[in-house]
Amino acid sequence: MYTANDSNVVQSHGKIIQERFDVPVRSKCIPDQPLGIYDDESEKAAIPKIVEMGVQLEQEGCRLLIVSCAADPGVEALRSRVSVPVIGGGSAASLVARSLGEPVGLMGITEGVPPVMSSLLEDLVAGYIRPDGVTNTTDLLTDAGREAALEAARTLVSQGAKAIVFACTGLSTIAFADVIRKELHIPVIDPVDAEGLLAANYYKQLEGI
Amino acid sequence: MYTANDSNVVQSHGKIIQERFDVPVRSKCIPDQPLGIYDDESEKAAIPKIVEMGVQLEQEGCRLLIVSCAADPGVEALRSRVSVPVIGGGSAASLVARSLGEPVGLMGITEGVPPVMSSLLEDLVAGYIRPDGVTNTTDLLTDAGREAALEAARTLVSQGAKAIVFACTGLSTIAFADVIRKELHIPVIDPVDAEGLLAANYYKQLEGI
Repeated sequence: MYTANDSNVVQSHGKIIQERFDVPVRSKCIPDQPLGIYDDESEKAAIPKIVEMGVQLEQEGCRLLIVSCAADPGVEALRSRVSVPVIGGGSAASLVARSLGEPVGLMGITEGVPPVMSSLLEDLVAGYIRPDGVTNTTDLLTDAGREAALEAARTLVSQGAKAIVFACTGLSTIAFADVIRKELHIPVIDPVDAEGLLAANYYKQLEGI
Repeated sequence: MYTANDSNVVQSHGKIIQERFDVPVRSKCIPDQPLGIYDDESEKAAIPKIVEMGVQLEQEGCRLLIVSCAADPGVEALRSRVSVPVIGGGSAASLVARSLGEPVGLMGITEGVPPVMSSLLEDLVAGYIRPDGVTNTTDLLTDAGREAALEAARTLVSQGAKAIVFACTGLSTIAFADVIRKELHIPVIDPVDAEGLLAANYYKQLEGI
């Protein structure tokens, strides 16, 4: 489940997970929120829709649900309404990052770090940066945007980060993790990747039983 | 790295990870601790050996280290001595379990839950049980041991657990997770599986850069 307007974006998280982890994925987008979740009000509006969609997907036979957003919107509410596992993008990325036990730098294109991520990463957060002049993923596709984002990652490393964690799924759809890995030679934790890793792990267990 | 005497056991964690996650694994056993880590004193004795072995493995070219024990012995000390990622069995299992966001039941064959696991799982721990009459993995291979362990898992479910987490790698080597999954139809988080999942994720990233 996503918050996005462009149907390519809506499908892209699911495609990444399906191809990388070899599990079947059905994708649905939260209706009437073309700009996604960007503040408290838009999150509040999204939650009942996410819960409703999740309940529906379970009824349609889905054996596991992923809320593919770094803020984990509606994840807790949904868990109390369905009996299948629910994996959130922000919590998955934070938990995968935490397994390294090292300080990490958070990077995103929104105002701040989703609360679910800071509460799970706690003292491991070396810093958070929104790259200069980058307010949407398209900005990252330009040379200036790409350089600003790499500069942000370098700054986080100089602040003690041993790995970079994306605090936003916008960076996943353009595969920016690989750019940082190649330039900085450090691990990058991408929420779509992390949620896929954990979801596929549980899905494959459930498939066999 | 393990604490075990039997060379089959020493190799078995590595074999599981190599086969399940398709990464090359070199296994070493902590010397002179045939009974492994079973109390504070044996843990204290093991830590410098684990650190030394980890440093050596990095020098030999290992790009990532796994300390395959639910107590994460020496993991923090080792992280300060090497530059490659260090994944611990207990922390990996706890973090993978936490991604479900549901109460979990812990099961082991030792006295209590390793502190690293209770501190990462916090309020999600529904309970801990050592199956009746089971003090080593061989006990689980008998019909009585198997039934006692399944009974323990059922009790944990009745205490609110939505998944079972092994607080000991002894249950991994005999593949007891599959027994519980088939009988109880719930997810089981096995430390060897969890450490392999996370380690392979990072190893594959590092391989490409």
